[in-house]
Amino acid sequence: MYDVSTPDRLIESTRELLWERGYVGTSPRAIQRRAGAGQGSMYHHFSGKPDLALAAIGRTAEEMRAGVEEILGGPGTAVERVSAYLRREREVLRGCPIGRLTQDPDVMADPALRRPVEETFAWLRDRLAAVLAEGRDRGELGAGLDPGPTAATIVAVLQGGYVVARAAGTSEPFHQAVDGVLALLSRP
Amino acid sequence: MYDVSTPDRLIESTRELLWERGYVGTSPRAIQRRAGAGQGSMYHHFSGKPDLALAAIGRTAEEMRAGVEEILGGPGTAVERVSAYLRREREVLRGCPIGRLTQDPDVMADPALRRPVEETFAWLRDRLAAVLAEGRDRGELGAGLDPGPTAATIVAVLQGGYVVARAAGTSEPFHQAVDGVLALLSRP
Repeated sequence: MYDVSTPDRLIESTRELLWERGYVGTSPRAIQRRAGAGQGSMYHHFSGKPDLALAAIGRTAEEMRAGVEEILGGPGTAVERVSAYLRREREVLRGCPIGRLTQDPDVMADPALRRPVEETFAWLRDRLAAVLAEGRDRGELGAGLDPGPTAATIVAVLQGGYVVARAAGTSEPFHQAVDGVLALLSRP
Repeated sequence: MYDVSTPDRLIESTRELLWERGYVGTSPRAIQRRAGAGQGSMYHHFSGKPDLALAAIGRTAEEMRAGVEEILGGPGTAVERVSAYLRREREVLRGCPIGRLTQDPDVMADPALRRPVEETFAWLRDRLAAVLAEGRDRGELGAGLDPGPTAATIVAVLQGGYVVARAAGTSEPFHQAVDGVLALLSRP
């Protein structure tokens, strides 16, 4: 029982610390303290901080994908599903747990840690492109709509919406940007 | 002559250091050293680091506005001008000097330092909205196009394009997002 939950607690503690303090500010000792795990136990399960950070980022990416899939894989037209995804409840001023990693220089400098961040955005773009292609083929969207670049635009709107909301200190610019792209998508 | 250029050198040094090390990593001593100015001279011209940071951010914002105005205030249809702005040469992987300030917790925590960041984005959105309204009124864009949210989308696409490009380690996702929003705008 103990052995099953210790790696979990170590991963969760690493996620929290990465979010609060960034990679450079996250020490193995702080991870152990927060997880209530000893140094021996930590090194029994993980080879070190990079290994734990990789597991932590991987779990964040997995959760994000599951949340996206729940909406995009659900019922409705393409625009309805994209709209439900863009408008789902989110803590805009906290920002995106994946997007924020792009501002952590230590994460970006390590190819192993950058990979899951890159792959998550690529997956999201491809998933959105598939939904848009479906909508186009069903005649829900204009026949001229190019799913790939449109999906890239939607991903950027989300990430940039967080940036501009943060600058404004309110979620309003995020919602405006979402309204704008959905209106462009919905044009006949 | 000396008196004229010292404040300038201090402001430029502060801009460079804010970019390289962030607010917390920018010390008055480092600013003086880089500017080749003494402590007395610095405090003769500026009340301290917050005052210098404000001048530095203000100058960055001013330069950004001038660069935008040069293109959006130029000749061409609305879509041509927006397209020229989005496609102008930029160092995508370096990111936006204004947008990056939203990731500096000390800048965001100080209302005086956050204000020029917020105002620059608001100005950019309004400027783009004015161009789009012009285009709509001239019949260049669909009559149903709502300039405000569309402009908010364009600002977010730029900022989010930088984020996703950084994750990918290449400017490709930025250009894809730009292509996507321009295609949506250009639909009849």
